[in-house]
Amino acid sequence: MGLSLGKLVRLKRLLYHHGPGGGTLLVLPIDQGLEHGPVDFFSNPDALDPEYQFRLARDGRFSAIALHIGLAEKYFGEYTGEVPLILKLNGKTSIPSDAQAFSPLTGTVEDAARLGADAVGYTVYVGSPSQDRDFEQFRGVRRDAERLGLPVIVWAYPRGEAVAKKGGKESLWAVDYAARVALELGADIVKLNYPVRSEKDKESPPPYNTLDLSPVDAFRKVVESAGRALVLVSGGEKVGDPELLEKVRESMAGGATGIIFGRNLWQRPREDALKMTQAVHAIFREHAEPYR
Amino acid sequence: MGLSLGKLVRLKRLLYHHGPGGGTLLVLPIDQGLEHGPVDFFSNPDALDPEYQFRLARDGRFSAIALHIGLAEKYFGEYTGEVPLILKLNGKTSIPSDAQAFSPLTGTVEDAARLGADAVGYTVYVGSPSQDRDFEQFRGVRRDAERLGLPVIVWAYPRGEAVAKKGGKESLWAVDYAARVALELGADIVKLNYPVRSEKDKESPPPYNTLDLSPVDAFRKVVESAGRALVLVSGGEKVGDPELLEKVRESMAGGATGIIFGRNLWQRPREDALKMTQAVHAIFREHAEPYR
Amino acid sequence: MGLSLGKLVRLKRLLYHHGPGGGTLLVLPIDQGLEHGPVDFFSNPDALDPEYQFRLARDGRFSAIALHIGLAEKYFGEYTGEVPLILKLNGKTSIPSDAQAFSPLTGTVEDAARLGADAVGYTVYVGSPSQDRDFEQFRGVRRDAERLGLPVIVWAYPRGEAVAKKGGKESLWAVDYAARVALELGADIVKLNYPVRSEKDKESPPPYNTLDLSPVDAFRKVVESAGRALVLVSGGEKVGDPELLEKVRESMAGGATGIIFGRNLWQRPREDALKMTQAVHAIFREHAEPYR
Amino acid sequence: MGLSLGKLVRLKRLLYHHGPGGGTLLVLPIDQGLEHGPVDFFSNPDALDPEYQFRLARDGRFSAIALHIGLAEKYFGEYTGEVPLILKLNGKTSIPSDAQAFSPLTGTVEDAARLGADAVGYTVYVGSPSQDRDFEQFRGVRRDAERLGLPVIVWAYPRGEAVAKKGGKESLWAVDYAARVALELGADIVKLNYPVRSEKDKESPPPYNTLDLSPVDAFRKVVESAGRALVLVSGGEKVGDPELLEKVRESMAGGATGIIFGRNLWQRPREDALKMTQAVHAIFREHAEPYR
Amino acid sequence: MGLSLGKLVRLKRLLYHHGPGGGTLLVLPIDQGLEHGPVDFFSNPDALDPEYQFRLARDGRFSAIALHIGLAEKYFGEYTGEVPLILKLNGKTSIPSDAQAFSPLTGTVEDAARLGADAVGYTVYVGSPSQDRDFEQFRGVRRDAERLGLPVIVWAYPRGEAVAKKGGKESLWAVDYAARVALELGADIVKLNYPVRSEKDKESPPPYNTLDLSPVDAFRKVVESAGRALVLVSGGEKVGDPELLEKVRESMAGGATGIIFGRNLWQRPREDALKMTQAVHAIFREHAEPYR
Repeated sequence: MGLSLGKLVRLKRLLYHHGPGGGTLLVLPIDQGLEHGPVDFFSNPDALDPEYQFRLARDGRFSAIALHIGLAEKYFGEYTGEVPLILKLNGKTSIPSDAQAFSPLTGTVEDAARLGADAVGYTVYVGSPSQDRDFEQFRGVRRDAERLGLPVIVWAYPRGEAVAKKGGKESLWAVDYAARVALELGADIVKLNYPVRSEKDKESPPPYNTLDLSPVDAFRKVVESAGRALVLVSGGEKVGDPELLEKVRESMAGGATGIIFGRNLWQRPREDALKMTQAVHAIFREHAEPYR
Repeated sequence: MGLSLGKLVRLKRLLYHHGPGGGTLLVLPIDQGLEHGPVDFFSNPDALDPEYQFRLARDGRFSAIALHIGLAEKYFGEYTGEVPLILKLNGKTSIPSDAQAFSPLTGTVEDAARLGADAVGYTVYVGSPSQDRDFEQFRGVRRDAERLGLPVIVWAYPRGEAVAKKGGKESLWAVDYAARVALELGADIVKLNYPVRSEKDKESPPPYNTLDLSPVDAFRKVVESAGRALVLVSGGEKVGDPELLEKVRESMAGGATGIIFGRNLWQRPREDALKMTQAVHAIFREHAEPYR
Repeated sequence: MGLSLGKLVRLKRLLYHHGPGGGTLLVLPIDQGLEHGPVDFFSNPDALDPEYQFRLARDGRFSAIALHIGLAEKYFGEYTGEVPLILKLNGKTSIPSDAQAFSPLTGTVEDAARLGADAVGYTVYVGSPSQDRDFEQFRGVRRDAERLGLPVIVWAYPRGEAVAKKGGKESLWAVDYAARVALELGADIVKLNYPVRSEKDKESPPPYNTLDLSPVDAFRKVVESAGRALVLVSGGEKVGDPELLEKVRESMAGGATGIIFGRNLWQRPREDALKMTQAVHAIFREHAEPYR
Repeated sequence: MGLSLGKLVRLKRLLYHHGPGGGTLLVLPIDQGLEHGPVDFFSNPDALDPEYQFRLARDGRFSAIALHIGLAEKYFGEYTGEVPLILKLNGKTSIPSDAQAFSPLTGTVEDAARLGADAVGYTVYVGSPSQDRDFEQFRGVRRDAERLGLPVIVWAYPRGEAVAKKGGKESLWAVDYAARVALELGADIVKLNYPVRSEKDKESPPPYNTLDLSPVDAFRKVVESAGRALVLVSGGEKVGDPELLEKVRESMAGGATGIIFGRNLWQRPREDALKMTQAVHAIFREHAEPYR
Repeated sequence: MGLSLGKLVRLKRLLYHHGPGGGTLLVLPIDQGLEHGPVDFFSNPDALDPEYQFRLARDGRFSAIALHIGLAEKYFGEYTGEVPLILKLNGKTSIPSDAQAFSPLTGTVEDAARLGADAVGYTVYVGSPSQDRDFEQFRGVRRDAERLGLPVIVWAYPRGEAVAKKGGKESLWAVDYAARVALELGADIVKLNYPVRSEKDKESPPPYNTLDLSPVDAFRKVVESAGRALVLVSGGEKVGDPELLEKVRESMAGGATGIIFGRNLWQRPREDALKMTQAVHAIFREHAEPYR
């Protein structure tokens, strides 16, 4: 990949020197307080305190924790050197209508550099009516990240009325398109939903409406569309344990570089969360490779 | 907290060296002339002259006075050294429709630094359809405040149609979400409404619609959601004296760092206002702690 | 007042060394060609040539003439040293709908400084749906005026649907609110309409809808709301001579620093206009005070 | 006029040293390809090649040619020193709806300076709902032109629904207002339509709806409204030869400094166009005056 | 042409030293993954991997490959010196409604210069309601390209409701207008659709609605409207081989400088694509001319 030196230094650190290593990525996101509100912390009240996630990230040997500037400035100081930081740069609440979905910047690449982050995260709402504004905002992020040597992780989320009408935001068509958009816009890593195969696929544009692919094969296709951008699979809402581990297994088998699971890990008591994290590590080890 | 030196210097001054001290904050806001118009000064005509509030802030030993650039430039000069200044950076009138609620900047962090202010205040309308523009504007304020070493106080106000439909702007759900948003965006201090428990709570999203919490416990929860951001309770419209002092007591017991009461204090004759202020000081003393 | 040295120098010049002096201000505005079109010059065709106003301002010993950049650059050169200049910085035509009333900048504070102006003028449409954009634009003007030492005169005009519904743009409620907004935003001088007492007042918000104040007392209240910002009374459409002089007398008695009359003065033949101006001077002399 | 030295140098060149001279201006515009499309070149296919207009401007001794950056960069190089350049800075196609008429910048004053232009041209749509954006864009152009010493020619065009309802864009009311707006905004030269007297005038605002002026007197009035801004009369669609020359005669008699005719000249075979141009020169000579 | 030295250097390289040479241009675009999604790669799955296009461009001796920043940064490094790069600067997905068609910047001219590109590409949607924003964005691109010496290729695409109503986006009227707009805005090279003659032409504005031109003559006319801007013919959707080669022949005979065919070439197996490319080379050789 034609990455600048600064990006290479930080990517190598994330992929090989922190967390599970071996070229994999295990990321703990804690931006749900902004995106969904404190409601996400009710099932495990301990998780309302961001220290919970910081400790889980440290003790569970995550590759990095991903969060907004406010949490970074108030909590990261005590974990520097122990938990690498991915500064999530844009976000929004779930309160106003999502019709024009757009995530404004809450922080900047310069903030990330100043705080010693190892990467930045940015949400692109592929297909939103505000897509043009989004691309322009992202262009600035990409440019600054290039200048300051920070890898860019794109949360590539299909969104908007047109997406809803054509199979929905988790359809193979939508996720596949989002993967390619992230690659073309300049993502170094792209965070994607694992595509869901369902009846709604029939509303996708051809030939997606007639494709007969298993979930794993569908995901493999998405990974190909992402090209040389590394793929992280996002967890979404909490699901059962076997289902969760199966998703990890399939993701890694399908070509993912790693996972970024939040609610599925920190919506559990600490011991349970650490145990599940160990199970993820075990799967990751099967895919570990030495630095090429 | 990972605060820069300039912020620490000024926070310490506000929390320990002016006003009640002991780690508490007693703030007198006088931005209602802009937000509501001179109508707020009819019940106590003396209060129309900003000197009234400046003298009250000085003689009542407030931690600081909070106001816009126009009042700061015209009146603050005679009280420097006696009343610390919080420059309120954005505001609006109540005249045009609130449907797209957004408060434009009336001053800047550079103005605050130039005038020797000890903090800046910024209103975020959480949930407004203009939330994206608001977040972007706030990002600039946060960055400048970081650069110039000024603590940021966020007036975190739920607002907009979607909020009105889900329990209202004073519901626990709305205030709780606003507290967390302020923390994630980078507030050092967050000004919140004391959540009101009412029938409307049933319209809040689950599990808020079934929560059975006393007002104090509800407030305590909000303080937790604000995390390491200090909490100021706002006064709102004038209420009866016992009710007011009870609110102060509950706020301090619930974890607030202090209060920011305007109309409830300066909509009274001077002697009455000073007396009430002394009563607040008495409550604060019970929560005073030496500098850690 | 905490004014910077440059502002003080220029304000002193306007208040004491040009025009009637003694701390009063007599301003001749000639921005109606932009705001209303050449239609305003039909009753006195000589007034279509801006030289008419420049000569009237000089020979009638006005404190200053107020106009846009185009007239300043083309006509002011021949009157420098004789007529101080207030550069009006924003304006609009009356042609497109006023529903979103907003006056864009036609010139800048730097233009004013470059041309040797002694103050700048800016129209704020208080209550307009575009109020947020207006406040932001004004913030830039205020900042530049602070930097370059130019006093800021705010044309504080209530405007918009909500204002029309609540007593109208000349109601005491509306003018009173506008006066305070100008003060809070940082006006050094505020230009206001003399409030009109009428049946429409009953549609104003309480307690304005029941206030029983004479016009002079109503105006006095407005002057108080403007605080330390000096007040200029605007003339509006041409009225009869006795009515006009009465307005001047009441304004000065009510606490105004001066008047800014355009059409009422230059929509007359030169000799008539000069005579009326002398009558205004006579009233002003009764309010003259030496420099404090 | 209080023009800067650079503007004077260039204006003198245009008015006295190129083209007909004697203080007159004969300008050939070739921006119709952008404004109307290649359709305007069908009646004289030779005119599709911009060299046609450049040669006509040179051989017909025009004061200048006016066009956009694309034509300037691709064709002007071969005519430098022979045909002065007026860089037209903004324009639009006629394809999308004109309801919000606004002409974005296609080039900048810096482009004009870089290419050695002697003036810049800018279209203001007076009365358009986008008027505020237009004024702001023009302010930047005026400022840069002041800084770089380039005279500004304003194409002052009434436009928009409100104009259409009040007599139309060629009514005396509309053209008269546009002339004054250009003066107030800072035009050095203003390009105006020759006002058309018609039944529609009765829909103009008073007193225009009852004015009984001949076309020449109506135009004379417009020239007065433009004040010290020089007036260029625009040609519009192609008309008959006697009618055309009469328009030139009336314009010059009415106080115009010159004409800016495009389609009426280049929508003819070269010899015919040159002959007509000579006829215009003859009329201009009657109005020539030595440099004052 | 009045091109700057940097532009000349790069144009010469593209026209004479890479690819078919002889003053022709053969460009391979690979921005369809962004514009249409991965759907375009189904018919030839190998083409999903951008290396397919890079190898095809190299082995088929194309003048250049055109793509967005993401693909450039991730894949171009291995082909530098072998395949010249045209950085496509703006783009959008096909998901949200096209009613306000506008392509935001995904990269910048500085990115192009940094990566060693030989030209930049920019899509203008002529006639779109967002045309004003588009022109403004393009102005910045043109200025930066001038400053950094990069030729500008304009994808001139008629678009929007008004275009659809008047003959459609491939009608002679629309393509002809687009060609001229590109020239006037400052394109060095313009990419156009080959105009389609159809029944819909009758809905075009006169005289286009009655023009009786063969496709080749229609195209020749378009080339004339583009003036000194070089013309590239775009391929569009995949068509049959004879039809494709006929289009190439007609284009070159009609005055095109070259073609820019994507899907018609890379939606084939490699050997087939190379063979077709050789056929194009053969046609180009008939039009090759030495450097003048």
